[in-house]
Amino acid sequence: MSLNETFRSLREAQVRLGLENREAKDNALRAVMAAIDADRTAVLKANTEDVEKARADGMKEALVDRLLLNDQRIDGIIEGIADVVRLEDPIGRVHAGWKTPNGLFIERVAVPIGVVAIIYESRPNVTADAFSLAYKAGCAILLRGSSAALSSNRALVKAIQKGLDQGCGISAAVSLADSGSRSEVDEILGARGSIDVALPRGGRELIRRVVENARVPVIETGEGNCHIFVDQSADEENALDIIENAKTQKPGACNAVETVLVHHSIAGRFIPRLGVRLAGRVELRCDTLSSGFLRQYSGLPPRLIFKDAVDQDWETEYLDYILAVKIVSSLDKAIDHINRYGTKHSEAILTNDLRAAEEFCRRVDAACVYTNASTRFTDGGQFGFGSELGISTQKIHARGPMGLEALTTIKYRISGAGQIR
Amino acid sequence: MSLNETFRSLREAQVRLGLENREAKDNALRAVMAAIDADRTAVLKANTEDVEKARADGMKEALVDRLLLNDQRIDGIIEGIADVVRLEDPIGRVHAGWKTPNGLFIERVAVPIGVVAIIYESRPNVTADAFSLAYKAGCAILLRGSSAALSSNRALVKAIQKGLDQGCGISAAVSLADSGSRSEVDEILGARGSIDVALPRGGRELIRRVVENARVPVIETGEGNCHIFVDQSADEENALDIIENAKTQKPGACNAVETVLVHHSIAGRFIPRLGVRLAGRVELRCDTLSSGFLRQYSGLPPRLIFKDAVDQDWETEYLDYILAVKIVSSLDKAIDHINRYGTKHSEAILTNDLRAAEEFCRRVDAACVYTNASTRFTDGGQFGFGSELGISTQKIHARGPMGLEALTTIKYRISGAGQIR
Repeated sequence: MSLNETFRSLREAQVRLGLENREAKDNALRAVMAAIDADRTAVLKANTEDVEKARADGMKEALVDRLLLNDQRIDGIIEGIADVVRLEDPIGRVHAGWKTPNGLFIERVAVPIGVVAIIYESRPNVTADAFSLAYKAGCAILLRGSSAALSSNRALVKAIQKGLDQGCGISAAVSLADSGSRSEVDEILGARGSIDVALPRGGRELIRRVVENARVPVIETGEGNCHIFVDQSADEENALDIIENAKTQKPGACNAVETVLVHHSIAGRFIPRLGVRLAGRVELRCDTLSSGFLRQYSGLPPRLIFKDAVDQDWETEYLDYILAVKIVSSLDKAIDHINRYGTKHSEAILTNDLRAAEEFCRRVDAACVYTNASTRFTDGGQFGFGSELGISTQKIHARGPMGLEALTTIKYRISGAGQIR
Repeated sequence: MSLNETFRSLREAQVRLGLENREAKDNALRAVMAAIDADRTAVLKANTEDVEKARADGMKEALVDRLLLNDQRIDGIIEGIADVVRLEDPIGRVHAGWKTPNGLFIERVAVPIGVVAIIYESRPNVTADAFSLAYKAGCAILLRGSSAALSSNRALVKAIQKGLDQGCGISAAVSLADSGSRSEVDEILGARGSIDVALPRGGRELIRRVVENARVPVIETGEGNCHIFVDQSADEENALDIIENAKTQKPGACNAVETVLVHHSIAGRFIPRLGVRLAGRVELRCDTLSSGFLRQYSGLPPRLIFKDAVDQDWETEYLDYILAVKIVSSLDKAIDHINRYGTKHSEAILTNDLRAAEEFCRRVDAACVYTNASTRFTDGGQFGFGSELGISTQKIHARGPMGLEALTTIKYRISGAGQIR
C-alpha cells in the first residue's frame, strides 16, 4: 500500500471508529490483548533479531534496554492495554453546556482528534501503548517506529491487527509505516488534511527534524534535560536517595535527572557524599567548584569517575549513567539555570523551605515541577492516566504526560429554534 | 528596536506579567480603556488614512468595512476590554488535584502560555481584543497586523502602552511588529523559544503561508468556508431568514455562509424563493440543477444575478455578497460535500427531522455544528467568552472561538515527602 492509500484507509477507518461506542472499542482491545499473548513467541523472536542487530551496530546498553522485550515486558504491554480498557471513554463527554441570552443551547463535546501519527524511537512498548490509547479515543494511528525496532514493531502490529479482526474491531485504524526511508517521515509530516496531529517521541535530533519539516500540527514530546536542585535546607540523606533514584533507576527514560544543582552553602559537605553514593555507577561531570570539593575530599572511593564539565554538558540529555553537577549561589541562580538549559519537562527542588519551594514551582517553566520527590514520576501510569502517549514538552494542547484526553478535541453543538443575529 | 530585542523584551515582560495578580491586571486594563478613549481623535484620524489608502488601492468594500473604525466601533473596542476586565482570571486555577497511591499530591494548575504572536489581516479591533485577552491571561503579545491597517494599529498600540504606563501595568508586554516586510513575519514564525504560539488570523493565503513557514507552534484560525444545509423538513420561511442573515449581516466575517446546500425534494420550490429573497443584494453561483430551477421560474426579479458555478466556487470563502448554491440528493451527500470542501469552521443544518439533525452534528467535522440557527453565532462574544482571539479551525489546543482559556497552558505541581520510584 502506498502512503497515500494508507492515509485514505486510516481516514475511512477513523470516521467509522469515531462513531463506535465504548463497549465495541473495549471488546476489540481485549481481543488485541489475547492476540499479543498468543503471538508472544513470534514477538520475542522478532525482538531478539532487533536487539542482536542493535548490539552489533554498537548501540549503547541504556538504549538497548529501551529496545529489549522479554516475557515480563510483554506482560507489561498486555497489562497496559488492560489499563486502557478500564479507562472511561473520553469521547462524547459534555465538558460544558449553557444557554445564551437569545436561547441558543451550546454544548462543548469531546470528539476524537482524528488521524494521529506517532514518530518514535526504539521502544516497542510505545507501539502498543500508543495504539491502545488512540483506539480507545476513537483515533486511527499511523506508527512510525525506528528502524532499530522494525521487526519487533511488525510482529506487534501484526498481532494487534489480528486481534482487531478477531474482536470485531477496525483493523485498518492502525498502520505501521515501515519503509524505513527518511522521505517517508517527511511525507507523513507534510500530509495536511490526512494527519491531524503528529507526535514525535524521542531525542532532540528527532524532535528538531520533525518541527522543522512538519506542515501538520505537532505536539513535541520526550526530550528531558531534567534538573534536581538541592537547596540549603534539604534533607541530605533523602536528597541522595532521590538523586540516585532519578539517575539510576532507568537512565534511558526522559524523566531521568541529567544535572544536579547544589546550593553553595551545603555543597562542601554534600558534593563528596554524592560522589560516595554514586561511585562505580555514575560518572560525574562537575563544574570547577564541585570538582574542587571532590578533589579535596580524602574519603573518595577510587571507583568514582568525575570529569570537568564543559558548556555542552548543561544542555545534554545523557540518557546514560552520567550526571552533570553544578554549584549555584542561590535559588535564583538555580531557577535561571533551569529556565535556560531545561527542556520544560520535569524539574525538582529538594528543600524544607516553604518560600523556596513556592518560588521554584512558580518561576520554573516546565510541565512538571516537583518538591521533594524524584523526577521519575513524570509518567502517565504514575499520574493515574493509564498508559501514556509521551510527555509533552510544549505548551499547546497538552503538557506533561499525555493520556487519552490528549487525543481528543472538542466540537461545539449548537441547537437553535431559528435564531438569527 | 530589532526584532530580537523585541523578543527578549517581551519575554522579560511576560515573566513579570505571569506572576501578577488579577487586581493589577484589571487596573492596567481599565487604564488602557481610558487611554483609548482619550486618544480617540488620533486613532480615528490614523484609521481614516488607512481607509483612504485602501480605497485608493481598490480594496473591496466588504474588506474596507473590516478596516473601518468610527466612534461607535471605538466604543465597541473599549467595551470589549471592559468585558475582559469582568472575566475571571484564568491563571492559577487548579483544574484538578489528586493524591497518588504513594502519597504524591499532584495539582494541575493553569499558567500563561507565554509569549504569543498574532498575525492578522485588516481589522484594527483585533489589536485591542487580542492585547486585552493576552494581558488578562498573563501573556505578552507581539502584534503583526496587515500593512493596510498600519496607521490604525500604531495609534491603538500607542494608546494601549500609554494606558499601561499610566495604570502601573507592564507596557513592554505588548509590541507591534510594524516593519511591513514579509521577512519580519518569517522571523517571527521561526523564533522557537521566543514565541510560544503563533496565531494567524485571516484568509487562506495568510494561513497557508504561516503553516508552511512556522517553526513555532501555530493555531490556525479564521478561514471559514461555511455551509447551510436546508433539509427537506426545514421551515422554509425561517430558512430564508437564516440564510439571508448568515450571508448579508456581515459578509466579511469568517462565520458568514458561503454555500447553501438544498435537499432536492424541496429545491424546485425553495430555490426560486431564495432567488427572490436575495435579489439585488447577493449574487448566486448555482449548480446546473439550481440554475435550471431559477431559469424556469417566471416570477424572478430582474435584479437577481446568478451565474453557473465552477468547481472553485465550492472551495471559495467569498467574504462578499456572493453565495454558492447546490442541490444535493440526500443528507449523506450534504455531509460529504461539507466534509470535503468545508474548513471545519461552522456548519448548519436546518431541519425538523431529529435523526437528520443528530446525524449531521455527529458526522460533520467542524468546530461548530448548528441545528436551526445562523452560522454567524460562532463568535467569542456570542458564546459568552468576552472578546475572542479568533476562531480556531484546527483540532489541537483550541477549537472554535478562542477566549482567555486558549491563552493558558497547564503545569503539574507535584508535592512529595521524599518519594522515589
